[in-house]
Amino acid sequence: MRFLEIQKDRKGSLAQQIFEQFRVKILDGEMAADEKLPSTRELSHMLNVSRNTVLAAYEMLASEGCVTNVPASGVYVKEGAARTELSEETAGAARMRDDEEESGALEGVVSFDSGVPALDLIPRNGWLRAANTAFREAPLEAFGYDDPRGRRELRALLASYLQRTRGIRCHPDRVLVTSGTKQGLTLLAKTFLSPGSEVFIEDPSNDNVRRIFSYHSQHIVPIPVDCEGIRTDLLPEDKRPSCIFVTPSHQFPLGGSLSIQRRVALVQYAQQRDSYIVEDDYDSEFVYSGHPVRSLHELDRERVVYVGTFSKILFPSVRLGYLVLPYSLVDRCREWKRLGDHHSNSLYQLALARFIESGELERHILRMKKIYRKRRDLLIDLLKRAFAGSVRIFGETAGMHLVAEFEEVVFSPETLERLRRARVAVVPVEEHAIIKGKHLGRAILGYAHLPPELLHEGVARLRRALER
Amino acid sequence: MRFLEIQKDRKGSLAQQIFEQFRVKILDGEMAADEKLPSTRELSHMLNVSRNTVLAAYEMLASEGCVTNVPASGVYVKEGAARTELSEETAGAARMRDDEEESGALEGVVSFDSGVPALDLIPRNGWLRAANTAFREAPLEAFGYDDPRGRRELRALLASYLQRTRGIRCHPDRVLVTSGTKQGLTLLAKTFLSPGSEVFIEDPSNDNVRRIFSYHSQHIVPIPVDCEGIRTDLLPEDKRPSCIFVTPSHQFPLGGSLSIQRRVALVQYAQQRDSYIVEDDYDSEFVYSGHPVRSLHELDRERVVYVGTFSKILFPSVRLGYLVLPYSLVDRCREWKRLGDHHSNSLYQLALARFIESGELERHILRMKKIYRKRRDLLIDLLKRAFAGSVRIFGETAGMHLVAEFEEVVFSPETLERLRRARVAVVPVEEHAIIKGKHLGRAILGYAHLPPELLHEGVARLRRALER
Repeated sequence: MRFLEIQKDRKGSLAQQIFEQFRVKILDGEMAADEKLPSTRELSHMLNVSRNTVLAAYEMLASEGCVTNVPASGVYVKEGAARTELSEETAGAARMRDDEEESGALEGVVSFDSGVPALDLIPRNGWLRAANTAFREAPLEAFGYDDPRGRRELRALLASYLQRTRGIRCHPDRVLVTSGTKQGLTLLAKTFLSPGSEVFIEDPSNDNVRRIFSYHSQHIVPIPVDCEGIRTDLLPEDKRPSCIFVTPSHQFPLGGSLSIQRRVALVQYAQQRDSYIVEDDYDSEFVYSGHPVRSLHELDRERVVYVGTFSKILFPSVRLGYLVLPYSLVDRCREWKRLGDHHSNSLYQLALARFIESGELERHILRMKKIYRKRRDLLIDLLKRAFAGSVRIFGETAGMHLVAEFEEVVFSPETLERLRRARVAVVPVEEHAIIKGKHLGRAILGYAHLPPELLHEGVARLRRALER
Repeated sequence: MRFLEIQKDRKGSLAQQIFEQFRVKILDGEMAADEKLPSTRELSHMLNVSRNTVLAAYEMLASEGCVTNVPASGVYVKEGAARTELSEETAGAARMRDDEEESGALEGVVSFDSGVPALDLIPRNGWLRAANTAFREAPLEAFGYDDPRGRRELRALLASYLQRTRGIRCHPDRVLVTSGTKQGLTLLAKTFLSPGSEVFIEDPSNDNVRRIFSYHSQHIVPIPVDCEGIRTDLLPEDKRPSCIFVTPSHQFPLGGSLSIQRRVALVQYAQQRDSYIVEDDYDSEFVYSGHPVRSLHELDRERVVYVGTFSKILFPSVRLGYLVLPYSLVDRCREWKRLGDHHSNSLYQLALARFIESGELERHILRMKKIYRKRRDLLIDLLKRAFAGSVRIFGETAGMHLVAEFEEVVFSPETLERLRRARVAVVPVEEHAIIKGKHLGRAILGYAHLPPELLHEGVARLRRALER
């Protein structure tokens, strides 16, 4: 139904007003040739005017040659009635950066993005089956405004999934379903930060994390990281952070796994200062060597928030993740979630519950772990052969990316331009560093989404671009 | 796969460590009778230990009577091996308020909630068809990290939908898909508020709006509302708000529609002070009398943000809405959306695009409008009969709720308790008022979700509870 605006007290009869608005729509091309006008009955109903008023308006339009009346069918816009000119909106649009085109220009680039699963291998059929069954069986209330913490079915299954796969014991009441990790961090920042709060963040760390916390706190303190994770010996004695952000299973981006000694030291430090710890466990499902390590969360459940996501083990656009919260934070987090987006898509939550319950999720993880391990092994092999003794690889024991440090290479704008011309893309570690200048020759190489032929091609291009 | 943690340098052999952890899981009941243990091959792979180590651990378990070995099948937990006691988590859970039970206690209550569509009449089959087709035809990138502004297909259809139904002209580049209005408001607050900013809010107004803006600004200024919407004559001359929040189509909660004179005055006020206006058009699809009025947005596209939602015209848990933005705000809003939850569920965005494109959405709206109008008419009739000359009704020309003002009634805690005992629930306007004490006898009565029999029953209970 076309929008028309009429006013009883405006100059001109109601029929005249209707006529003029249709005329403008037709002249401007908003209504195209052969488009059918609403029936007189529909329009009179919509505008609360008599049918005779609408009839009079349509006759004016016909006598102007804008429309034609097809008996027993309706009134249609005539061919050739539109003016052709550049509208304001079209001009405005031209001013806008067009991202579609930008990404079009990247066609053919081998991109070593990190954190992107193999999208061509996601279990489309299995997920669709789960989604359909969940939708059909969904109770009425799953279509309304739902529990901000998430569907109880899903929270219960997450609790048992976490116990089974990560040794985390938690009651479903401590689980809060999020629309992904970034949302989870925003909720936490709102829950335990105030303007004067200090936040410790691993350095380097995912730059989004710094940006998110920066909105809520002016005092971001970077804590250095080495190949074993956060340097607990460098935690400042004289500070009292509200929160410490860490990725202990597979440090992002450097890839270290925090030793049990550092875990204990970190938790003790937080206990002495009454700080919260945020444990982001974004890809610990994929561990290729070494032994699984107990989560920080299990060392102090009332202090450590465990953050998980389905972006990596399922697919990013599913937009589902979760927090395992200390009881003391549940109510406040729930309220921020309610004010944020009320709750995450309930039907997808039910689909995920079904997908976990049937065992499909864990089967999919096992399958992808085998594939990712092969891709990782291949990438390491290719790098070592292409760069002989001049590359050092670390952070490769888990996850979906590794870090390569190239001798005598600095990922300067010039180097990145050479890579661009060679049609290969990597993210320098420096982009995620808070204190700059310490990781100049290091790049993050995501491999999970790259099949063997692209790994071959990507490393060949890297070599061409980086050799002098 | 069960989580096990082993350490090479810990006391006890690796087999001993595996044995002890399974033993605890079985004793604690975490692993139930008849649960199958992982195969020796799986477990050795997962823990990176030899199969002989796992075999040794399983033999220890068997000799303790915890498991039994079924030849050619596997190793299973034996019946009766679990201790029975209250776990820490169970005890913790008992401390938690159990919402399920709370809502269970509300069984049989007639609730005049506002803003809830008739969930039993949502187009489940049509939506599922659209969702399935959209999922099957979705391009690969719709499963990855997607455009924070939303899928281009959906933004283009929203732009033409808005032009058709609301007379709003906008290029798809000005549309940003949100996970609902609350999220849209948060993005806007982050985009144009700083700690010193003043925000004008209609009073009364949805209390969530005040809460959301309060997080981002210390200076919330209530502007009084009458039955025609915001009192533009009371806009303070000496202030310079960063943003003015209004619901001009159907003021929430009082239900007025802002006259064209006040619309023009409001936009002029904002222009003189370089303020943004946020136009929340939450339920303007359902207009029952009077004529459709031009949006504020069309009066100044670079100053007014138009906010829309699918919670009312489709169903709340779909969690999709949108902003129509001035070009000057697009990039910043997009970045806050990216940091907030990256983007809204892409597959549901594609489903919605299909649902709009096929015309099903507009057919559904027309159908619901007829039903809601009947429910509204019935409610008005019932109220007038039950409360004869002692009720005044307003805000009934549009939307999904109306306001009833009862003579000599104050919706005090005692009155609400009487209502609760009569098993009928209403929300007093006072709950949404910033300056208290002006709307004591007024209640918001949502009717969209209530079939005729519940409207009859609800009004009867209201009458019983309110008569002295």
